[in-house]
Amino acid sequence: MDYQKILDDIAAELEDYDREGHLPDYIPELQQVKADAFGMVLCTLDGQSYHTGDSDHPFSIQSISKVLSLTLAFQRAGESIWKRVGVEPSGHPFNSLGQLEYENGIPRNPLINAGALVIADILVSRLDRPLDDFLAFVRKAAGTEAIDYNHAVAESERQYGDRNAALVHLLKSFGNIQNEVSEVLEFYYHQCAIDMSCRQLARTFLLYANHGKFSGSGDEIINFSRSKRINAVMQTCGFYDEAGEFTFKVGLPGKSGVGGGIAAIHPGRYSVAVWSPLLNAKGNSYKGMKALEWLTTRTGFSIF
Amino acid sequence: MDYQKILDDIAAELEDYDREGHLPDYIPELQQVKADAFGMVLCTLDGQSYHTGDSDHPFSIQSISKVLSLTLAFQRAGESIWKRVGVEPSGHPFNSLGQLEYENGIPRNPLINAGALVIADILVSRLDRPLDDFLAFVRKAAGTEAIDYNHAVAESERQYGDRNAALVHLLKSFGNIQNEVSEVLEFYYHQCAIDMSCRQLARTFLLYANHGKFSGSGDEIINFSRSKRINAVMQTCGFYDEAGEFTFKVGLPGKSGVGGGIAAIHPGRYSVAVWSPLLNAKGNSYKGMKALEWLTTRTGFSIF
Amino acid sequence: MDYQKILDDIAAELEDYDREGHLPDYIPELQQVKADAFGMVLCTLDGQSYHTGDSDHPFSIQSISKVLSLTLAFQRAGESIWKRVGVEPSGHPFNSLGQLEYENGIPRNPLINAGALVIADILVSRLDRPLDDFLAFVRKAAGTEAIDYNHAVAESERQYGDRNAALVHLLKSFGNIQNEVSEVLEFYYHQCAIDMSCRQLARTFLLYANHGKFSGSGDEIINFSRSKRINAVMQTCGFYDEAGEFTFKVGLPGKSGVGGGIAAIHPGRYSVAVWSPLLNAKGNSYKGMKALEWLTTRTGFSIF
Amino acid sequence: MDYQKILDDIAAELEDYDREGHLPDYIPELQQVKADAFGMVLCTLDGQSYHTGDSDHPFSIQSISKVLSLTLAFQRAGESIWKRVGVEPSGHPFNSLGQLEYENGIPRNPLINAGALVIADILVSRLDRPLDDFLAFVRKAAGTEAIDYNHAVAESERQYGDRNAALVHLLKSFGNIQNEVSEVLEFYYHQCAIDMSCRQLARTFLLYANHGKFSGSGDEIINFSRSKRINAVMQTCGFYDEAGEFTFKVGLPGKSGVGGGIAAIHPGRYSVAVWSPLLNAKGNSYKGMKALEWLTTRTGFSIF
Repeated sequence: MDYQKILDDIAAELEDYDREGHLPDYIPELQQVKADAFGMVLCTLDGQSYHTGDSDHPFSIQSISKVLSLTLAFQRAGESIWKRVGVEPSGHPFNSLGQLEYENGIPRNPLINAGALVIADILVSRLDRPLDDFLAFVRKAAGTEAIDYNHAVAESERQYGDRNAALVHLLKSFGNIQNEVSEVLEFYYHQCAIDMSCRQLARTFLLYANHGKFSGSGDEIINFSRSKRINAVMQTCGFYDEAGEFTFKVGLPGKSGVGGGIAAIHPGRYSVAVWSPLLNAKGNSYKGMKALEWLTTRTGFSIF
Repeated sequence: MDYQKILDDIAAELEDYDREGHLPDYIPELQQVKADAFGMVLCTLDGQSYHTGDSDHPFSIQSISKVLSLTLAFQRAGESIWKRVGVEPSGHPFNSLGQLEYENGIPRNPLINAGALVIADILVSRLDRPLDDFLAFVRKAAGTEAIDYNHAVAESERQYGDRNAALVHLLKSFGNIQNEVSEVLEFYYHQCAIDMSCRQLARTFLLYANHGKFSGSGDEIINFSRSKRINAVMQTCGFYDEAGEFTFKVGLPGKSGVGGGIAAIHPGRYSVAVWSPLLNAKGNSYKGMKALEWLTTRTGFSIF
Repeated sequence: MDYQKILDDIAAELEDYDREGHLPDYIPELQQVKADAFGMVLCTLDGQSYHTGDSDHPFSIQSISKVLSLTLAFQRAGESIWKRVGVEPSGHPFNSLGQLEYENGIPRNPLINAGALVIADILVSRLDRPLDDFLAFVRKAAGTEAIDYNHAVAESERQYGDRNAALVHLLKSFGNIQNEVSEVLEFYYHQCAIDMSCRQLARTFLLYANHGKFSGSGDEIINFSRSKRINAVMQTCGFYDEAGEFTFKVGLPGKSGVGGGIAAIHPGRYSVAVWSPLLNAKGNSYKGMKALEWLTTRTGFSIF
Repeated sequence: MDYQKILDDIAAELEDYDREGHLPDYIPELQQVKADAFGMVLCTLDGQSYHTGDSDHPFSIQSISKVLSLTLAFQRAGESIWKRVGVEPSGHPFNSLGQLEYENGIPRNPLINAGALVIADILVSRLDRPLDDFLAFVRKAAGTEAIDYNHAVAESERQYGDRNAALVHLLKSFGNIQNEVSEVLEFYYHQCAIDMSCRQLARTFLLYANHGKFSGSGDEIINFSRSKRINAVMQTCGFYDEAGEFTFKVGLPGKSGVGGGIAAIHPGRYSVAVWSPLLNAKGNSYKGMKALEWLTTRTGFSIF
């Protein structure tokens, strides 16, 4: 499979593709970005790596971080996390309070905001130095120390974070938050404000293609069974109210962020990261979705 | 009309009536109360007053305060308040976030929590010393200085106030809160934590029976038209998701609180306050509802 | 009170008023109407009658018929009807299925479509010849034989009646319809398709101003208590999702229809009917709402 | 892989497993069944077949038929079907009207009732003799003529089918049904009332494991791309509001029915059918879900 050619073709064709989409309006800091950027990196399990475009340009991973925090919480707190968050797709926007209210404070899954906030609460409880320990975990998964929180973005999220604050208070009113609201939000705003490049992100997600082991060291972060289940959650819940569409057209487990990034994997084969800042109406990268659709079409294999 | 006999009969019959209902569980301080208390006071526009039972025992007025804060906000900010809150019944529990989300941050009316929080925000903006000024207004309406905030109750509300905090954050995310979240909540928790007796409350609500003028001094607090409209809002929105039932069975504008109090009026005739702490499933005083139903049946007149 | 002058002034001022609103699009037959028609009739309990504009022009009473069918069902089946339908405002559009589903097949009130369909089912069960008997009741209330079903409108409603058919099937799935779906719909489509003039409608609604007695004969149709409760239901539920607005601005119990008619009453004083076909966004007559608002402002009295 | 031993072990362990669940109460005919039946059949792409328990006992396939009707509609009407039905998981019960109303008559996916009714409408339009042609298609896929409609079950569904009738009327009110309501329902009730055994069902679903080709003849029914997309829809939408749970625990595309059957596939490897009539709270076979969870655990591979 000539992955390099496929990536180059995709990048070339997307250059002429219609320039649609919008930047997210609720985090001002995220609007300081080159709107027409495009980068894509694919890493295979056998150690090869292919890249095209702005593959080393750091961007805000935003909600992609939810997969990483879920992984660390799953590792630390085990199956107990599923008492506090479900695994069903939401069928609603990513930050719905009405659904959470209707479901009595148990978020439908860990990849919508409400669920990620519960996971953040678990990490605040379980980690000695939450922000340091989480960053260390991400750096280890990415195989590099050159990753950090973007404090300007975290601050921007805090200033415009009333809806997330509302979610944490509502969760707490149902008894599903154990720490102070401000602590949970502080952790969450930083977790979302990590900057990574496509190269770093693809490298990190090899973990999931490799069923829980770091590709380099072979260290097991989470076991086979849990890794498969995280992949399953990505498949059904990774794209907000567009998870079905992504499954339908791309057919790979993945996770998007409003920073324009998407990470996806083909279990047992490869991980892939793509970045393009303009978002479609559902909040997923417009060109990123298209790139991944073309990738599975041209490689000829999805998990289905 | 022999109001005294009607009140005495109601009190006597309610003594033998089934002892149903529950105390509110989400404000611990409100559980420190004599569960089988009952008091009732009726004041006519011509200056007569009738009372029975625990008519001088102070209790937490809770949501009844929403009518008073609405009145003061209407006086200070005029018709502009209706840009930020509607006048439609909610058809949902008093503290629903889902509805507020669906309605894009404009609460359906000023007597559900979301709406009262917007009104509180208006008062925080408009009053020089919000808590002092609001208390002074209530004291003037009641014709007595012997009314105060119950700080223990306010503190209890604060500690168990995550749902209200969620509402204010959600409102703010829609741009419908202008002050700091903590300021608005502080005002709101105190406004709800005023202690009054049935006698004080009935006296206060004469204002609405008298179309906006204090019965004693004759001072106009709000004009005729605005008073009528506050009465209309009480009629359609005063009893959470039981407003229709109250209108159907009692047929008077009124407002209930989870402290077990209800204040109601017959425009142009009388005001009435009743207190009995045990609540029905919808959060309204069980015996209080019954007492008012019997009152309009036995006097033979409602507004319909 | 010079009602005639008030009516004439209203009519004159409405002529120059902005010509807003739309005709209902889901019943084609209702679009065959003079869009800028306006008529208004007020009948006092002491037998006087005042009129202006197109006061004798028949129009389709549509949902106003729901008050009449409720009255007949209440007379025939008594309090048992409240086991099958509530008295709470809906907080949703008039034909919502989601709300009915959520409430397990018990419509929130008898003046939304779902509730009126349950009432229709009761009448189909209780009346020997449902359509004939209902028409006879309406004619008697109006004091004239010159009222009839408009079969072309009924047929038009049947052809575009899939949403009402969905409601009846959903009600039946919850066990809240006892007759054949087609029978209930046939009755309902005809009930809505009665043609009346403002003069006939005002005369008919005197019944409710007069607490259940025909103004002419003095015959009691429903007793005092039940009449008051029907008035209460009109107040809280008579204008779909604009009931609060109507209560707030007009302050009278009433009921609107998509044919552009509104009937309202001041208990103990008068009944009033107004007709103007163009509807506002909530489906109520644009000029009709304005006319009634001006009426209570200029007479200086509402029930509040 | 010793599939036979795995199947036998599962059957043996399930015999001692807790006997939970209930029979569906809304289709009386489906209650005439041996509640503790259990059968399971697995067919590999290389032509092997493994079975255990009641593997030849016919049962009502119910909603499993929705995958077959979708396949035939996709074949006949092509991509145009996606204008009338989405591919997103619903996050609601399988027969929700409120969701359909909110989504303006476009069902979220073809595997909930509303979506399957739209697909039925498409087939009624596209097939010359809808019931005969659909049955012929199923027989061909199953490789046997010994499959038929169970008319008693179809009749039972018709008698208790008010909710489905409500759905079709609601769809039609949005313009998303083109044929007569009665025709669409007639087709739908029969499609659900096909009786098949696990053996027949597993054989039929080889089609999806084989990416659209009949395993016997090699005839292509739908092309590779479309077959993958049907598998994707099964993955995200095949188990009502338990699709996430099934993906999480089993990790295979599949579809369940209230008759107690489940069909699932491992693309490129095998198809599997299981039957056990008692249902869990979400309406999926209690033991069937467990059997498939154990199958992927013991074989060691899911698609994730």
